[in-house]
Amino acid sequence: MQPNFSMPLRGIVPPLVTPLIDNETLDVAGLERLIEHVIAGGVHGIFLLGTTGEFASLSYKLREELIRLSCGFVKGRVPVMVGISDSAFAESLNLARKAAQYGADAVVITPPYYFESGQPELLEYLNRIMKDMPLPLFIYNMPVHTKVMFAPETVRAAAEIPGIIGMKDSSANLAYFNQVRYLLRERPDFTFMVGPEEITAEFVLMGGHGGVNGGANMFPKLYVDLYKAAAARDFDTLLPLQQKVMQISTGIYKVGKFGSSYLKGLKCALSVMGICSDFMAEPFHRFNDPERKRIEQVLEELNYQELL
Amino acid sequence: MQPNFSMPLRGIVPPLVTPLIDNETLDVAGLERLIEHVIAGGVHGIFLLGTTGEFASLSYKLREELIRLSCGFVKGRVPVMVGISDSAFAESLNLARKAAQYGADAVVITPPYYFESGQPELLEYLNRIMKDMPLPLFIYNMPVHTKVMFAPETVRAAAEIPGIIGMKDSSANLAYFNQVRYLLRERPDFTFMVGPEEITAEFVLMGGHGGVNGGANMFPKLYVDLYKAAAARDFDTLLPLQQKVMQISTGIYKVGKFGSSYLKGLKCALSVMGICSDFMAEPFHRFNDPERKRIEQVLEELNYQELL
Amino acid sequence: MQPNFSMPLRGIVPPLVTPLIDNETLDVAGLERLIEHVIAGGVHGIFLLGTTGEFASLSYKLREELIRLSCGFVKGRVPVMVGISDSAFAESLNLARKAAQYGADAVVITPPYYFESGQPELLEYLNRIMKDMPLPLFIYNMPVHTKVMFAPETVRAAAEIPGIIGMKDSSANLAYFNQVRYLLRERPDFTFMVGPEEITAEFVLMGGHGGVNGGANMFPKLYVDLYKAAAARDFDTLLPLQQKVMQISTGIYKVGKFGSSYLKGLKCALSVMGICSDFMAEPFHRFNDPERKRIEQVLEELNYQELL
Amino acid sequence: MQPNFSMPLRGIVPPLVTPLIDNETLDVAGLERLIEHVIAGGVHGIFLLGTTGEFASLSYKLREELIRLSCGFVKGRVPVMVGISDSAFAESLNLARKAAQYGADAVVITPPYYFESGQPELLEYLNRIMKDMPLPLFIYNMPVHTKVMFAPETVRAAAEIPGIIGMKDSSANLAYFNQVRYLLRERPDFTFMVGPEEITAEFVLMGGHGGVNGGANMFPKLYVDLYKAAAARDFDTLLPLQQKVMQISTGIYKVGKFGSSYLKGLKCALSVMGICSDFMAEPFHRFNDPERKRIEQVLEELNYQELL
Repeated sequence: MQPNFSMPLRGIVPPLVTPLIDNETLDVAGLERLIEHVIAGGVHGIFLLGTTGEFASLSYKLREELIRLSCGFVKGRVPVMVGISDSAFAESLNLARKAAQYGADAVVITPPYYFESGQPELLEYLNRIMKDMPLPLFIYNMPVHTKVMFAPETVRAAAEIPGIIGMKDSSANLAYFNQVRYLLRERPDFTFMVGPEEITAEFVLMGGHGGVNGGANMFPKLYVDLYKAAAARDFDTLLPLQQKVMQISTGIYKVGKFGSSYLKGLKCALSVMGICSDFMAEPFHRFNDPERKRIEQVLEELNYQELL
Repeated sequence: MQPNFSMPLRGIVPPLVTPLIDNETLDVAGLERLIEHVIAGGVHGIFLLGTTGEFASLSYKLREELIRLSCGFVKGRVPVMVGISDSAFAESLNLARKAAQYGADAVVITPPYYFESGQPELLEYLNRIMKDMPLPLFIYNMPVHTKVMFAPETVRAAAEIPGIIGMKDSSANLAYFNQVRYLLRERPDFTFMVGPEEITAEFVLMGGHGGVNGGANMFPKLYVDLYKAAAARDFDTLLPLQQKVMQISTGIYKVGKFGSSYLKGLKCALSVMGICSDFMAEPFHRFNDPERKRIEQVLEELNYQELL
Repeated sequence: MQPNFSMPLRGIVPPLVTPLIDNETLDVAGLERLIEHVIAGGVHGIFLLGTTGEFASLSYKLREELIRLSCGFVKGRVPVMVGISDSAFAESLNLARKAAQYGADAVVITPPYYFESGQPELLEYLNRIMKDMPLPLFIYNMPVHTKVMFAPETVRAAAEIPGIIGMKDSSANLAYFNQVRYLLRERPDFTFMVGPEEITAEFVLMGGHGGVNGGANMFPKLYVDLYKAAAARDFDTLLPLQQKVMQISTGIYKVGKFGSSYLKGLKCALSVMGICSDFMAEPFHRFNDPERKRIEQVLEELNYQELL
Repeated sequence: MQPNFSMPLRGIVPPLVTPLIDNETLDVAGLERLIEHVIAGGVHGIFLLGTTGEFASLSYKLREELIRLSCGFVKGRVPVMVGISDSAFAESLNLARKAAQYGADAVVITPPYYFESGQPELLEYLNRIMKDMPLPLFIYNMPVHTKVMFAPETVRAAAEIPGIIGMKDSSANLAYFNQVRYLLRERPDFTFMVGPEEITAEFVLMGGHGGVNGGANMFPKLYVDLYKAAAARDFDTLLPLQQKVMQISTGIYKVGKFGSSYLKGLKCALSVMGICSDFMAEPFHRFNDPERKRIEQVLEELNYQELL
């Protein structure tokens, strides 16, 4: 269960969008283009089947196919992390085994997201699942969707479990994540990645290891440059890049409704850019023409060709 | 897609506990005993793979096996409803097909429970899934776990979709459910079942069709008698039965912590009663000795043998 | 601290709308008309400064004036209950003293609603406030606005505190309220009133004492008749009245947005009916013409003159 | 309505603890000591009657007295901001007038916190209250207690209202606050202050103006030094200070329960340090001996004398 990459993992790891033709069919050509696009942009890893990858909406068959194809396209050029979050313990393990079989480097797991666990139950859950886990594991904090936070003390205890090597926090609550990092200050090998791209700069400046940023699907180089500037404490480079990131955040991700505007805007932009299909798995749907026009306009305002 | 039972369905339909030996193995003997027990108690149907059945924690293989075995044990004596809730559209359909294949009578679905749908998305979701649905479907409102309510107007529109024949509401919010029922007052064929057993009496008195009550796993006759007394407006019979139901609710379901006390207490009581194993699927765990002792004591106070 | 009315209190107690001319001025004539209207309709008490009375939006000066004027208009014909909920302990006591001074019969209190109390803190809060309380007190459960529920065990313990004589539950969760009632089954003197008018019938049928129903501002006789029919288990009378109540609930209370549609619809209808002004205290605003037209239309569909 | 200080305000502004002898009596000597303590530590302003000041639990009489005394003690040495948050519009204005009368420099307001406003209602609320506002105003985002967020677009529009000069965000969601700051990027005069001290360093590094940090009641110099190091991008100085801040956060603020551990720990530490009383207004209570012992121990581990 040694990770196939030096720890802590540092840099930008896009939570890969899952290109779809319909609810049951991958856009395989789009997937290959997307993977080449982000690797060309310099990303430090790829995260399959995260929230941005609509993992929860995909059949297990499709998830397996996505892991197999993606690992094949990546060919070891960057580490591949695979989301195995599920409400069912056994299905998470099944996915982990597929991930190992196809050559992924690590897996990533949220709390079970139908029933709400208490913190002792959450820790026990991690203990039990690690007994049969074929790959190193990142904890994935995503309370908006799972209803449950990993309490800082739970993370501290979980970090003692062999095979648990890092954490991705998508709560956007940096006060919380700083508490977690402080509790684990004696663990320089433990990786801390932050979800929201709007705070990756701050996070890296203060010692965080990197960002699992959805925008890196579109503009991998921008986020990689942001990461490098923050890691180098090069504010002259960093601040204009941060403005671009905020322009994307307030432009591309705020067009739709119902809390899915981020996902819809991101997939729409990738389609406008010619990278992959914007089909979305149920219960979501791609933007209609007026919203797509708005995304096209934001991309133009961004001079997006120059960001590539 | 005609239901194999006269509509509306009326009476008590236990959301069947899933007896387990371990996380991956059914307690088959316990399952058979449990089914015989509830049918002997006079229940009007059986609901597999609901929240009480820990559906979200079970592998698909186990869910299929449970459907197959249960339909075999029931042998058509009462209608069988099967929970097909899932975060993934395709897996819900897969489960529905298994349910049809093994002879179930209807299926039951919550909103997808990782991503939060808006109401128009929810209605569209139902529209699409019904296109390929091999069995009649009940809507299942369970906002504590799914984060999303079916708005009354969404239910009204959903009731127009062919094949959607009823609704189970586990919100415990009877003001809400009365609004739904009022909007559908021209649809005498549409079934309304309420989840919480603490309000089944009220609900049936005022025209509701019945209860999907967890306690009917333990004491099917009690809940069937309660239902009958409420349907007959026989208050002299009803009120003492309601006291028993409340004694169970405040005794058996309030021993544990973390929001899972209902499930743990119920499974523990079934084990104390010799009906089936109290093993719980991850992320939950059976009661330890002190809590089990407490359940034994509550059962004694209930004179539970007389309730059978 | 003996209540000036026989306990338990039974029947319909409208949570009185506060008629306003502007943010700082009572519509005194409207207030008098409203009080005469509800007393003429046969209500069993009046509840000032509840959520329906927009208590939290009113200055203390206005609250005091409302108490003074209302007690003067009522002249002891029915018991007057006064909401004293506040985030500040001392202000609640101040209001209670004003209520006593002007001749009110009881006070009503929610948990403090800025800071969230734990259950032991909530019980201690009640203990302390009762030490100086000049009037009997009803506990008021209103979790949507206060974020905190009174746990059933907290109510059981609170009912031991001298001077605490009843509870109003506006959670709409009748399963919860049935648990509370069961825990207090040895206290026939303790009053249980339910907030949502959609469930008053059920609640009274099963032994609850009555409803604190907003709709009784408009149609006191309807709700009083509903109460009486439910108390008499006269279903032939009850069921058509319940349909009227649901017509009001789904018609009058569902026109606006932002969660305040109930208050806006209710005040608008009272204005259309010529009873009092529809001005609303900040942060809310009366309906504009299109919404008002819709309310007029619903009132016509109700044949509202016949309900008076 | 020009602020009496150059804008944007920059630096550390402690949300002042309210020293109390009992629920109705200020610890006046403690208040004076506390104010001298934070001014000696170099703070850039003082914020009275914030959440840390338990504003919502205090009577209006006490709030007025606190404003009067504090302004007298401060004597213009630093700007004084006064919290005027209330569920009632008129009471907020009353407090603002008192603040102006006693010489405060600005006021601070959350959304009304009993009723939930929609975003248009929130903007209208600010518009109306500013018509009569005698002092410049900061918007105060505190969703844990108020249930409502100021949406970024609402802040953008509010910043156009004359007299609204800045914002304090206590959501801990820096992704959100970065969105707000980006929308107001053409407004270099608008002040952005962050609540949680755990993220003040990040926030200032990336261009935020400062922190309204509770810990600055205890250790004003530490937070001022942290602010200065962050503003100067002096990481060698900054990083060890950040470790101290996190030691305080994970040590002092995590001893109690029920979500009030921050307030209780802070007040207890101030009492241990001999600065002021640890009495807490209802519904909270000071720590008992075991918790106080724990706080003493954490203070020793911090070598707290050296932080002064």
